[in-house]
Amino acid sequence: VSEEAKVVVKASTLHTFCAQVFERLAVSSADAEIAADVLVAASLRGIESHGVSRLRRYVKGLQDGTMLAHPEERVVRETATTALIDAGAGLGQPVSYRAMKRAIDKAEKQGVGLVAVRNSNHYGIAGYYAMMALEHGMIGLSMTNANASVVPTHGQDAMLGTNPIAVAAPAGQEYPFVLDMATSIVPVGKLVVYRRQGKQMPEGWAIDEAGSPTTNTVRVLNNRLNRRGGGLLPLGGAGELFGGHKGYGLALLVDILSGVLSGAGYADYIHPKALEGKSPSAKVGHFFAAIKVEAFRPLGEFKAAMDDLIRRLKNSHKAESADHLFIHGEKEFEETKRRAMEGIPMEAGTRADLEAIAGELGVEYHP
Amino acid sequence: VSEEAKVVVKASTLHTFCAQVFERLAVSSADAEIAADVLVAASLRGIESHGVSRLRRYVKGLQDGTMLAHPEERVVRETATTALIDAGAGLGQPVSYRAMKRAIDKAEKQGVGLVAVRNSNHYGIAGYYAMMALEHGMIGLSMTNANASVVPTHGQDAMLGTNPIAVAAPAGQEYPFVLDMATSIVPVGKLVVYRRQGKQMPEGWAIDEAGSPTTNTVRVLNNRLNRRGGGLLPLGGAGELFGGHKGYGLALLVDILSGVLSGAGYADYIHPKALEGKSPSAKVGHFFAAIKVEAFRPLGEFKAAMDDLIRRLKNSHKAESADHLFIHGEKEFEETKRRAMEGIPMEAGTRADLEAIAGELGVEYHP
Repeated sequence: VSEEAKVVVKASTLHTFCAQVFERLAVSSADAEIAADVLVAASLRGIESHGVSRLRRYVKGLQDGTMLAHPEERVVRETATTALIDAGAGLGQPVSYRAMKRAIDKAEKQGVGLVAVRNSNHYGIAGYYAMMALEHGMIGLSMTNANASVVPTHGQDAMLGTNPIAVAAPAGQEYPFVLDMATSIVPVGKLVVYRRQGKQMPEGWAIDEAGSPTTNTVRVLNNRLNRRGGGLLPLGGAGELFGGHKGYGLALLVDILSGVLSGAGYADYIHPKALEGKSPSAKVGHFFAAIKVEAFRPLGEFKAAMDDLIRRLKNSHKAESADHLFIHGEKEFEETKRRAMEGIPMEAGTRADLEAIAGELGVEYHP
Repeated sequence: VSEEAKVVVKASTLHTFCAQVFERLAVSSADAEIAADVLVAASLRGIESHGVSRLRRYVKGLQDGTMLAHPEERVVRETATTALIDAGAGLGQPVSYRAMKRAIDKAEKQGVGLVAVRNSNHYGIAGYYAMMALEHGMIGLSMTNANASVVPTHGQDAMLGTNPIAVAAPAGQEYPFVLDMATSIVPVGKLVVYRRQGKQMPEGWAIDEAGSPTTNTVRVLNNRLNRRGGGLLPLGGAGELFGGHKGYGLALLVDILSGVLSGAGYADYIHPKALEGKSPSAKVGHFFAAIKVEAFRPLGEFKAAMDDLIRRLKNSHKAESADHLFIHGEKEFEETKRRAMEGIPMEAGTRADLEAIAGELGVEYHP
């Protein structure tokens, strides 16, 4: 694997390829560009679980009709500060890009903008949309619900998604703060990576269908797909002793803002089996917010204080086992710089899959 | 202790007493009412660590001048949707009550209201302010930074507060959702309770000054006060394996919105030693938001979906060890009902302390 892992592909090659794949599946050129950009951004940031290795998921969705190439996207309700958008069961990325842009436009004029989206699909990395706010001197927030994979505290069935929260805030000389986190201990994609590598996972991430701790990645992923019980544990783990009820509460919070407020699906209404035989059946909801810093204080002051906060943390005493204290987003900015220069490392499985997609759809791909 | 713990005091008695104590310390009658209400609300909800047992903290602050009885509270900056308030180093509760009310008024007209507060003090339970939104058909959010007590991932010194996040959302027949959580595994108050009971804490909540896991509650609390290193662990625990970097990120997020955006203190600028010999030296910041549900969908629809979400969760399979699956806020609403009828149980230490305050200040107290 280590030899294989050294194969790298240029980001621009992957971008062009992904965009052409989407276009070949009847997605408009503009939407294809956006969807490709979100996928490649994840690969550049080193978030393999949400990068181009996920292309197959969208190809399949567009082919089986659970994701529509030409959705009837529409603004259902709008005020100067808020909007509700119905995604019409299209790809999650283009509607989310436009929703966040709308939130930013509102924040530019009103200081804050909130946009909820219903009837959508998987939107890729939550952080992509939150980060759109940065260049406008704004704090961005993005969250989404997702397929039920997480077991609530004291429960035994997967009832909530890994429901990520992303928040981005600009800094001055330092990298911006970009928190992009599943509200479970780990996202589903992490288990998929472990499965691909034939590895057991650490005990404490998930429980099996009998409610027991398990390290069996394959079993947990199969149980999830077939709704046999068990699943991922919320941030804080099983029970309440280490705060598992807090991770559960954060997942629920995301479901309320993304699913209930928007009129999308929520809880276990969103799961792979619910999609079978329905066309289209998208039920995913998202929630976006942009806050203009200058509504509160001059942007320069804010950025200087952010730099100071970041430096105070980074200059504080490190644990003996560590030589570096990270701020959220820092690793991903460094990785993006490196991968933009050196290319994106591709696992054999992903390479084979992209080549298969190229062959099936007759799209050129020369990595 | 079990006999002692059965001593109960009526909520109204405690409310009147606390309000009179604040007034005796020159706080206005209106502000005294608010501060007393926030304290008693915590006691009613069963959150002992933030209830009337904390009265001494405010008495001390008002007496030593770190909290001003007559602050020059002022609105620094304001738009139709946002406001920044300088608390003038007064008590945290009255300014926070007014800030949240202002956010609600803005949301009533604009769909959303955001209010940041700087130059404030400890504001009690975060959930109190979030819950103010409920009767207006709004989702409420409240967060605050606090004395540095939490060690960042890969760090060794307490650099961030336990920085709580509270979100409240209305339901129909079911109790509202009220998440009110420190972003550390446990709040400082929990350790204080353990210390008072002479108990060791479970391993995994905190580290000592050498960075080692410890169960020594007294040591961790003393280290915190004297800034000797170590402290509470963020939600997710030490390192990154179980997501400790996520709890650290949430604490940082709260510090950015409450501290940096408002122009308050942040990170370890806020700690008990920073207060010594300065008068006033309040540096705490808060952040409040209100979102009007009807900007997105009819309130009745939202409430019905909330009820359905809550019931789906509560009707899902329970772990073998559990017979109940809780929604956030539910336990506290039940406790409030019970304590409003039966009175608030008072530990011997708290009873003695309230009686001492009554004697020192010449305020009547007949529990």
